[in-house]
Amino acid sequence: RCRCTSPGPVRSMEEILTRVVVPLPTYETREKSPPPPESNSVEFMNFYRSLEKEEKSQLLAKLSHDFGVDHKGVSELAGKLLDTQQRDLATILQVEDRLRYSLTPRYKQLLNHISRVESGVKFLVDLRADLLEIISSKASDSPHIRDLNGTLKSLLSEWFSVGLLRLERITWQSPCEILQKISQYEAVHPVRNWTDIKRRVGPYRRCYAFTHAAMPGEPLVVLHVALTEDISDNIQSIVREFATLDSEEDVNKVNTAVFYSISSTQAGLQGVELGNVLIKRVVRELQSEFPHMSQFSSLSPIPGFSSWLQGLLSQHRKEGRMELLTDCEWRKVADVTNTTPDTNALDALRKLISTGDWTRSERLVHVLEPVLMRLCAWYLYGEKRRGYALNPVANFHLQNGATMWRLNWHADTSPRGVVNSCGIMVNYRYFLQDTLSNSAAYMHNKVITATEQVLGLVSQFQKNSKL
Amino acid sequence: RCRCTSPGPVRSMEEILTRVVVPLPTYETREKSPPPPESNSVEFMNFYRSLEKEEKSQLLAKLSHDFGVDHKGVSELAGKLLDTQQRDLATILQVEDRLRYSLTPRYKQLLNHISRVESGVKFLVDLRADLLEIISSKASDSPHIRDLNGTLKSLLSEWFSVGLLRLERITWQSPCEILQKISQYEAVHPVRNWTDIKRRVGPYRRCYAFTHAAMPGEPLVVLHVALTEDISDNIQSIVREFATLDSEEDVNKVNTAVFYSISSTQAGLQGVELGNVLIKRVVRELQSEFPHMSQFSSLSPIPGFSSWLQGLLSQHRKEGRMELLTDCEWRKVADVTNTTPDTNALDALRKLISTGDWTRSERLVHVLEPVLMRLCAWYLYGEKRRGYALNPVANFHLQNGATMWRLNWHADTSPRGVVNSCGIMVNYRYFLQDTLSNSAAYMHNKVITATEQVLGLVSQFQKNSKL
Amino acid sequence: RCRCTSPGPVRSMEEILTRVVVPLPTYETREKSPPPPESNSVEFMNFYRSLEKEEKSQLLAKLSHDFGVDHKGVSELAGKLLDTQQRDLATILQVEDRLRYSLTPRYKQLLNHISRVESGVKFLVDLRADLLEIISSKASDSPHIRDLNGTLKSLLSEWFSVGLLRLERITWQSPCEILQKISQYEAVHPVRNWTDIKRRVGPYRRCYAFTHAAMPGEPLVVLHVALTEDISDNIQSIVREFATLDSEEDVNKVNTAVFYSISSTQAGLQGVELGNVLIKRVVRELQSEFPHMSQFSSLSPIPGFSSWLQGLLSQHRKEGRMELLTDCEWRKVADVTNTTPDTNALDALRKLISTGDWTRSERLVHVLEPVLMRLCAWYLYGEKRRGYALNPVANFHLQNGATMWRLNWHADTSPRGVVNSCGIMVNYRYFLQDTLSNSAAYMHNKVITATEQVLGLVSQFQKNSKL
Amino acid sequence: RCRCTSPGPVRSMEEILTRVVVPLPTYETREKSPPPPESNSVEFMNFYRSLEKEEKSQLLAKLSHDFGVDHKGVSELAGKLLDTQQRDLATILQVEDRLRYSLTPRYKQLLNHISRVESGVKFLVDLRADLLEIISSKASDSPHIRDLNGTLKSLLSEWFSVGLLRLERITWQSPCEILQKISQYEAVHPVRNWTDIKRRVGPYRRCYAFTHAAMPGEPLVVLHVALTEDISDNIQSIVREFATLDSEEDVNKVNTAVFYSISSTQAGLQGVELGNVLIKRVVRELQSEFPHMSQFSSLSPIPGFSSWLQGLLSQHRKEGRMELLTDCEWRKVADVTNTTPDTNALDALRKLISTGDWTRSERLVHVLEPVLMRLCAWYLYGEKRRGYALNPVANFHLQNGATMWRLNWHADTSPRGVVNSCGIMVNYRYFLQDTLSNSAAYMHNKVITATEQVLGLVSQFQKNSKL
Repeated sequence: RCRCTSPGPVRSMEEILTRVVVPLPTYETREKSPPPPESNSVEFMNFYRSLEKEEKSQLLAKLSHDFGVDHKGVSELAGKLLDTQQRDLATILQVEDRLRYSLTPRYKQLLNHISRVESGVKFLVDLRADLLEIISSKASDSPHIRDLNGTLKSLLSEWFSVGLLRLERITWQSPCEILQKISQYEAVHPVRNWTDIKRRVGPYRRCYAFTHAAMPGEPLVVLHVALTEDISDNIQSIVREFATLDSEEDVNKVNTAVFYSISSTQAGLQGVELGNVLIKRVVRELQSEFPHMSQFSSLSPIPGFSSWLQGLLSQHRKEGRMELLTDCEWRKVADVTNTTPDTNALDALRKLISTGDWTRSERLVHVLEPVLMRLCAWYLYGEKRRGYALNPVANFHLQNGATMWRLNWHADTSPRGVVNSCGIMVNYRYFLQDTLSNSAAYMHNKVITATEQVLGLVSQFQKNSKL
Repeated sequence: RCRCTSPGPVRSMEEILTRVVVPLPTYETREKSPPPPESNSVEFMNFYRSLEKEEKSQLLAKLSHDFGVDHKGVSELAGKLLDTQQRDLATILQVEDRLRYSLTPRYKQLLNHISRVESGVKFLVDLRADLLEIISSKASDSPHIRDLNGTLKSLLSEWFSVGLLRLERITWQSPCEILQKISQYEAVHPVRNWTDIKRRVGPYRRCYAFTHAAMPGEPLVVLHVALTEDISDNIQSIVREFATLDSEEDVNKVNTAVFYSISSTQAGLQGVELGNVLIKRVVRELQSEFPHMSQFSSLSPIPGFSSWLQGLLSQHRKEGRMELLTDCEWRKVADVTNTTPDTNALDALRKLISTGDWTRSERLVHVLEPVLMRLCAWYLYGEKRRGYALNPVANFHLQNGATMWRLNWHADTSPRGVVNSCGIMVNYRYFLQDTLSNSAAYMHNKVITATEQVLGLVSQFQKNSKL
Repeated sequence: RCRCTSPGPVRSMEEILTRVVVPLPTYETREKSPPPPESNSVEFMNFYRSLEKEEKSQLLAKLSHDFGVDHKGVSELAGKLLDTQQRDLATILQVEDRLRYSLTPRYKQLLNHISRVESGVKFLVDLRADLLEIISSKASDSPHIRDLNGTLKSLLSEWFSVGLLRLERITWQSPCEILQKISQYEAVHPVRNWTDIKRRVGPYRRCYAFTHAAMPGEPLVVLHVALTEDISDNIQSIVREFATLDSEEDVNKVNTAVFYSISSTQAGLQGVELGNVLIKRVVRELQSEFPHMSQFSSLSPIPGFSSWLQGLLSQHRKEGRMELLTDCEWRKVADVTNTTPDTNALDALRKLISTGDWTRSERLVHVLEPVLMRLCAWYLYGEKRRGYALNPVANFHLQNGATMWRLNWHADTSPRGVVNSCGIMVNYRYFLQDTLSNSAAYMHNKVITATEQVLGLVSQFQKNSKL
Repeated sequence: RCRCTSPGPVRSMEEILTRVVVPLPTYETREKSPPPPESNSVEFMNFYRSLEKEEKSQLLAKLSHDFGVDHKGVSELAGKLLDTQQRDLATILQVEDRLRYSLTPRYKQLLNHISRVESGVKFLVDLRADLLEIISSKASDSPHIRDLNGTLKSLLSEWFSVGLLRLERITWQSPCEILQKISQYEAVHPVRNWTDIKRRVGPYRRCYAFTHAAMPGEPLVVLHVALTEDISDNIQSIVREFATLDSEEDVNKVNTAVFYSISSTQAGLQGVELGNVLIKRVVRELQSEFPHMSQFSSLSPIPGFSSWLQGLLSQHRKEGRMELLTDCEWRKVADVTNTTPDTNALDALRKLISTGDWTRSERLVHVLEPVLMRLCAWYLYGEKRRGYALNPVANFHLQNGATMWRLNWHADTSPRGVVNSCGIMVNYRYFLQDTLSNSAAYMHNKVITATEQVLGLVSQFQKNSKL
């Protein structure tokens, strides 16, 4: 686990890498090469773990740069392929296969060998988390690092292929270890204590996780579901409601599944889509358990709404624009805040929103409800990044084929909910017969399916903003 | 499961394939393409299963030919890569990555999607078994079929990577389903009845199997071990010995593990090396269970020895050569068989060996022991295919790094054993500290490590044969 | 396990018993006595197992005679109880409690201690089987042996109380060990091979067993059920029908459960009623699994019918009576058998029944069907032992509250079935709302509930026999 | 579960009891009586649960009084037994058996039937807890209630016989439900949070529990063990030490097992000895797990020591006696407390001990150590109840055959520990070869085995107190 366990003094990275990253066998002998001893992989893992963050970054840079593809070999084969274009297909296929093989980075073998030793897969998942951090922190903009990341991602995609995932229902009878992890991983609506978590795995609730044979005891993605009679419009009624803790479930009272939290636990599995598959599997599971189950919807947070709004207000102030609210609305705000309906009111509003204090005044709440709702609708529906929804939660559910179904006022009244998204939450609803076509429409044509309520709020915003 | 379940009349292959094998997304949109519905994969699986053998072959030919790599796209990118050789590395890396992506056959996606539906992995394993049969039966020598086989093999190699395999010890408490399968799969020393199999999982025996999360209840490779005080030289003492059936194991009496049978059960996993990994894992398991465990060896059959010998005798007869036996040996054979020490004796010998009747005469047994032993040693050590041992069992253990340790006379006295290999068996011994270097020496340099006994027999053969 | 393991020479029974069967503590110190060391119990168990049958019988006689109740103490307390009859209730209760304690045989403690060591409960179950054999074989008519048997039975009844039994469904995934035992224990319709047993745990079949925490891996009573659309009238259609071996069960096709075999496996648990409880539990299990399940019935053998019939015929022959068949029937029998319609025909009939050869002649079958059916109905309904049905299977189901529902001709056409009960089988049907009252009527008033069909056959018999 | 579920208005106790407590069958028909329907038992259970405490007490009084033994029948049989004393043994045995049967209280059958319905055993365990409370609270001094208690206890003893208990090791992988219960039940050293309990099931710790098939998920008695290199003399080093939380256990570092907490969880199982059996089983378990395990000891609290000491001081004050401390000791106490070495010092001492404030003065601690140690030794060794150790923890371990091994000063420095037992704890050590004889000596002859240290302190106390 630490340097002192390595046999002898710390070797230079160079020396270690040269030794453990064996050269790619030739195309001819590729199936005749015995794998290197496991100790190679273990040594690399121990060495890597012993490094400081900065050193890790150096090591990965060196690995990806010096032990990647043999560019000269590739270009020779590319030339050869061009020369054989007039030859028979058998020849072309063979050169293509050689070319494909030559495009294998040398380090890919190391990754493969590591995956085979105990806890090797977990090591690689964590190593990819390091890579992603290096890339996003701009610590390195090396194309080689990106290549290494791409190679590792495609390997992880194979290993975490759906056929190899196991769906587990988590209950109060599950191992304590799992329940503790699930509590820790819950980022959306934090678990405060063990009664909280007992509630979330108790009657009228379900908690499902994917686990993987190569990472036993480690939930990869966790989905919390509330079983209800209606599509919930308030999160506190789900996570703070303990009345039913000892009741028996009545299957006839359940026709709706509300996905109120979904968390990925492994940063290193970014881009390996597990969440949508989990939702699909859970839908099937619930359908077979509850005969009357007919409605599926999320109750989702809107992270980023408040800060987006603050940015917008700040920009409008700079530009002296006031059109986010109607004149009438500004007057009311000014009235309550004892200001004038100009930049003073705007400043007051910015402060109220950043503190969440507006919720203490019934009049302000009354004034702001239509304002915040239409702004929020626009934020979710209209704000884009490369053509897709800017809000990551929206993007996730829309990719899965859900419909942007209902914005809910007063939906998360916790301090956190008020500060993050003015207490608004949104339901993304899954109409099972439409998800496939919705998903394709969104991913190919960037079309968002939404209900009248959402579209109505959006058009109010547009009218106001003269968009 | 059959045609009648497909919704509507049977569609032509063409139509089905066009629909279920969706085009490869462009490089840019490769991560923005939702997977096709599962029903696609299920439809293909049902369609394939409904076909006759001949039709399957046609379908696979069409799939591999019409839905493979886009050769034009590949050659364009190969050209582009050559053009960028003078550019910066970032550009080169990017073109290489596009080239790599363009080398993906379109059908690879289908295989990936199939692996995700229930029992999809098993379907692909069986489909590969079909492919291998087509290739080996020369039903098709299409290079596309070989390419499809290669693509599928590399996918299976990822999914059956060691980290995803589970070692299970099979006992009399294991599910009946598993034990029945293990009995059926045992090809080396057939299981006659349920007492037989009870013995093979009882005291002083071990039976281990690898299973895989995606194919539950299906042992992939099975290893039978006898726990002894000496390296066994006779198989009947292992599989026909019931004295210890109810005894308690005494760990202090065990210092040797004899691997007396190893069977791969899935034809479709050919080339995905599981057997050697299983042996390594079992060695570790046994070391931790038995404090005095120090010797590891196989007791292996020699399939093909008798037919090789018959071929040799037949050829010698044609060429009128008699040097396989010494003059003195021929005289003794002639004597016992009431023939003359010439081709008459040779004919008599061929007949005796093909029937196994030589074992009924004590004198013949006495005469033939040195003859057959040295011929067998040569067969194992000297006969090659592409430089590696011709005998597949020998090749397997030598690849794993075992030493050709001892030929055993009278080792398998069952009719099957006498007819197949004149009752001779061989121990491949695993000296743990040497297996890695042995394996490398064999695989790279085709060097076989053998003991004095084996080498002595080989040199007797060579002296005789003037080799 | 054998004599040679005992530390030193075999001690005399006397000496062993004196040492291991410690005296009963006094009433006052009964809760202050530490249990003797476990080695005491283990020594007794090993000693007992090392004895020959004859010696076991002697040991049990000695144990029950010399280590039973202290009669003198009991009679003193009985006297004291009579003296206190005029005293207050508290005093009476106390003397009663002392009297109760004094009626505890000294050996009861030994039995209790044995039950606590590993496999001790199984030892006691087997010891009771020995006791029952001694009693039934009249090897001993000692009242002490009967007392020991009674004490042990009441202990076993406590330990095998229903709350401690575990219902297990046996499937093809169950441990091989269990399935082998279940095959061996199946006495009613013997299991011929492993395909047979696979069938009996496969689709449209159920196999349930009770197990007990103190005897792991040992099924105590086994119930085989066929799931059908009608109440079966033929056993071969159940145990020799393999068409559905790989089919999927369709729950909507199942409305009937036919109990076609129930076996107790532990001779030593005689009188500890497990079978009826198992049936009740299975009925509940099936009701919750199959929504349309509405009919429950056995399909039962009639052991003893043929030998009872032979006895009857033999007696009639001696007494020269011919009224079991009508004149017309005798004439037909004589006709077919080439005899005269008198004792010759009777002799021919006896022979035909003992060999089962009557089934080979269609005419005889035709003649004998009404005869055998009414005789069989009488055997089941009219023949009694101490007022209860003589046939043990009938007695079992009637005690459970079943109705004697239907006699089935040609129901067991196996040689065994023909020879034992002329191929006739009977359904005891469980009408759930009536079983409690039926059971009480039968057990208290010896009333058998039967259908018109059965009663009609019985009255035909009575008319004929002038009963 | 509540009155409203009973079909119709609440029936009077009388009516309910008469219906559900069926009369005892006659001796002759005792095996021919079908059990009453389960609904009887369920009705009684629901009715009982619906009652208030006071009503429960009334119901139990009525049940035990009106549905007990038939005293007239008993006395008749007692008379008959006296009459048969001159007859043969067979006759005597038979009358004894009838007498024994007639001593069965009618309610015993009800208890038996309840034990057979789901969760019936748990109901009876809880009912016995109610009985014990009634008896100890003197709410009733009815001899019938005591009889009912005795009958129920002996039934529970049968059902909770050791052969039916399952030893479970509790780990961080155990179900959360179990770990939560174990945390709640831990009365000796309360579990503060989930890190606490994780520690107590982590490395160098063991937690074992007995469970029972009839009460799944319910630990009956729980034993906490610390694995150490020395016999611990301080509890905080065990329950507040987190350094090793993530370490790997080194089996070679462990030679001692310290039982630092044992809790019975079911009040209703009082007198059914589970604790000592659990200790024995755990000793065997640990011996087989740790090759060097050679020392077994408790580290036990001394509940009641402080209040016993207060009582003693209070009495001495009343009687004006000062000999508990030597003159010199009193002077020192007076000195530190600014009092005079007479009743003033005594009063000061009483106050200091009741508040635990003496621990704040180093000088006082120094003065009081020898005083409190010798008083405590006497409390444990010399104070008796009916001849056995007054302290219940001491009595438990002495019954098991442990030796009173070492008193530890400063052993439990928690406020609770200081207030309860002046911070002193004691090791009861288990010398395995002596426990059997120690146990017998203690239980029969009330002899306490103790070490020199303990005996030395006792004799100091005696010298001082002129005992």
